[in-house]
Amino acid sequence: MIDPWSSTSLDYEKLVQKFGIKPFKDLLDELEAPHPLMRRGIIFGHRDYGRIIKAIREKQDYAVVSGMMPSGKMHIGHKMIVDQLVWYQKNNAHIYIPIADMESYSARGLDFESSRQLALSEYITNYLALGLDFNTPKIKVYLQSKNHTVSDLAYKLAKKVNFNEMKAIYGFNGSSNLAHLYVPLIQVADILHPQLEEFDGPKPTVVPVGPDQDPHIRLTRDIADRFKSTYNFISPSSTYHRLMAGLTGGKMSSSQPKTAIFLSDTPEEAERKIKTGKTGGRESLKDQAERGGVPEDCVIYEMLLYHLLDSDEKLQKIKRECKQGTLMCGECKNISAELVRDFFQDFSKKREKAKKMADKVLVEY
Amino acid sequence: MIDPWSSTSLDYEKLVQKFGIKPFKDLLDELEAPHPLMRRGIIFGHRDYGRIIKAIREKQDYAVVSGMMPSGKMHIGHKMIVDQLVWYQKNNAHIYIPIADMESYSARGLDFESSRQLALSEYITNYLALGLDFNTPKIKVYLQSKNHTVSDLAYKLAKKVNFNEMKAIYGFNGSSNLAHLYVPLIQVADILHPQLEEFDGPKPTVVPVGPDQDPHIRLTRDIADRFKSTYNFISPSSTYHRLMAGLTGGKMSSSQPKTAIFLSDTPEEAERKIKTGKTGGRESLKDQAERGGVPEDCVIYEMLLYHLLDSDEKLQKIKRECKQGTLMCGECKNISAELVRDFFQDFSKKREKAKKMADKVLVEY
Repeated sequence: MIDPWSSTSLDYEKLVQKFGIKPFKDLLDELEAPHPLMRRGIIFGHRDYGRIIKAIREKQDYAVVSGMMPSGKMHIGHKMIVDQLVWYQKNNAHIYIPIADMESYSARGLDFESSRQLALSEYITNYLALGLDFNTPKIKVYLQSKNHTVSDLAYKLAKKVNFNEMKAIYGFNGSSNLAHLYVPLIQVADILHPQLEEFDGPKPTVVPVGPDQDPHIRLTRDIADRFKSTYNFISPSSTYHRLMAGLTGGKMSSSQPKTAIFLSDTPEEAERKIKTGKTGGRESLKDQAERGGVPEDCVIYEMLLYHLLDSDEKLQKIKRECKQGTLMCGECKNISAELVRDFFQDFSKKREKAKKMADKVLVEY
Repeated sequence: MIDPWSSTSLDYEKLVQKFGIKPFKDLLDELEAPHPLMRRGIIFGHRDYGRIIKAIREKQDYAVVSGMMPSGKMHIGHKMIVDQLVWYQKNNAHIYIPIADMESYSARGLDFESSRQLALSEYITNYLALGLDFNTPKIKVYLQSKNHTVSDLAYKLAKKVNFNEMKAIYGFNGSSNLAHLYVPLIQVADILHPQLEEFDGPKPTVVPVGPDQDPHIRLTRDIADRFKSTYNFISPSSTYHRLMAGLTGGKMSSSQPKTAIFLSDTPEEAERKIKTGKTGGRESLKDQAERGGVPEDCVIYEMLLYHLLDSDEKLQKIKRECKQGTLMCGECKNISAELVRDFFQDFSKKREKAKKMADKVLVEY
């Protein structure tokens, strides 16, 4: 059982084998211009992504749904999702962004108004600054608690889901409170509602998630099938991305500030933090020169891989030199620190501009 | 355990003793002009009704909440609830009437739009015709599925209710679907939301129900206590009325047409039906003359008691003569038939007028 509310590290290979997630790399050639995260294997798995590729290619309507749960500050690991959304936007997707204030209430005890404020001042601000264009009718950002279409649909879908099933998927028990028990249905409706008639009916839909969210995806696909005769739903597709390591080597987590570079950090903070990152270096310089470093186990390399280096060529060069033992961690950190400083110098300006626009993007329907 | 979705006959005395419902008759003297249903012992029990009497007396704000679940045609037994609402309206109550389309969906499979149409064409039409005045801001009729304030509150309250508790109260089990499991929280919110700040804050609230609905009341009172520190709720009061017997002696039920006189019946139909009613008469006229009839076990007498005879004096006379064996069932049925015809002749005209106004009463908030 994967618990979406508390999972930590995951064995990606096992997921692919055990739960029927398919390797993404098998589809790479079918995409004209795949996202770097796809090319670099960070997006490693999918379900039914073929129909999304077909929709992109044939310029048919399709939707991307990607929720945000306001719970703290966004860190650089979260940037990955926004980068994907920007890519989908360039590829003509309809984009739906539910702000999961209902989930935030049941999981974190945050009231709706605090969720709204946090979503605007932090999340939406970052989404804007990262280049997502909200100035188009093809994007819809909404608060779960204010979206009647979604809550109506959730309740209707709830009729064909029983407690035993929720127990098996999420590990609920008799002491689980009803808000917690019910809120997955809201998320299912978040994902399926773009296929309702008022949004022009059934269409391929993709949900880009971390593998810890796969229980939601499986439940959603099951429910879509159960209501096929009512709504003619197309079973939603999904992609799965690896989760970035934190600076200390474990998970990057907003609630553990030492593990994370936050999107609101100043260039100086970000630079200082990256220098504390756990590398894949050896015990001594001599040892490293002989055996080479281990980029697969290096937070700095991940930072370059996920975010800082657009050029595949440069990235491969760094990896090669690290493994050969010619590039040492100190120098590599200097390169990364410069890149991260440049990124944040630019980004913090964009954030300032974005802040003023953030409260205009919410839609109500 | 009382199951509000499927209870049949109930032993009222036991309820009063076992569940802590208090006898209503003990409060009668404190009311200046009690409703006939109170005076006649049809409203037989209550919880915390003292604070409602105080509010009426001291002309303080208080609320009455009385939902309707659209599920078929209204029969004359349902009239009792509307009669009480009319009385509360005269006594300056704020009246809230949720149309339980969400419950109707999970319990009867009725879609929201059908519920809305049925509520307007049947229920609201009858409420209007029975004299409830909708032309005042002190009355609010709404569809559960369209009331954001209620669904928000329901979800918030759901956080302090767990599955075990719902199981104990309603007999849910692992196969219970989530819509069914969740909808009692909507009803709890129906009852408590008039106490929110946007409706001028905490106030005494009464819910007039049949005893089969007591599980809802107990749950609502418990939840009100749990959220006292957040909302300062006053625990809601309730009254309990006996349920009218059907024409065949069992329960009066819309789904068994032979048991019921419908509010949409013509005067002729109603008259014909009442003549089929099961009486408390003896096997032979001779036997009845000797031993007298049994009005306590007579559908016709109930009809007079609940609805047809306003005069306590005339009612007592009929009861006395029946018991003495001087009033025979045939004659008594003739009296009742005339009364029911008169009622329906007048009422069917009022219904025609009401039909045209019904779709203007819904409020959205």
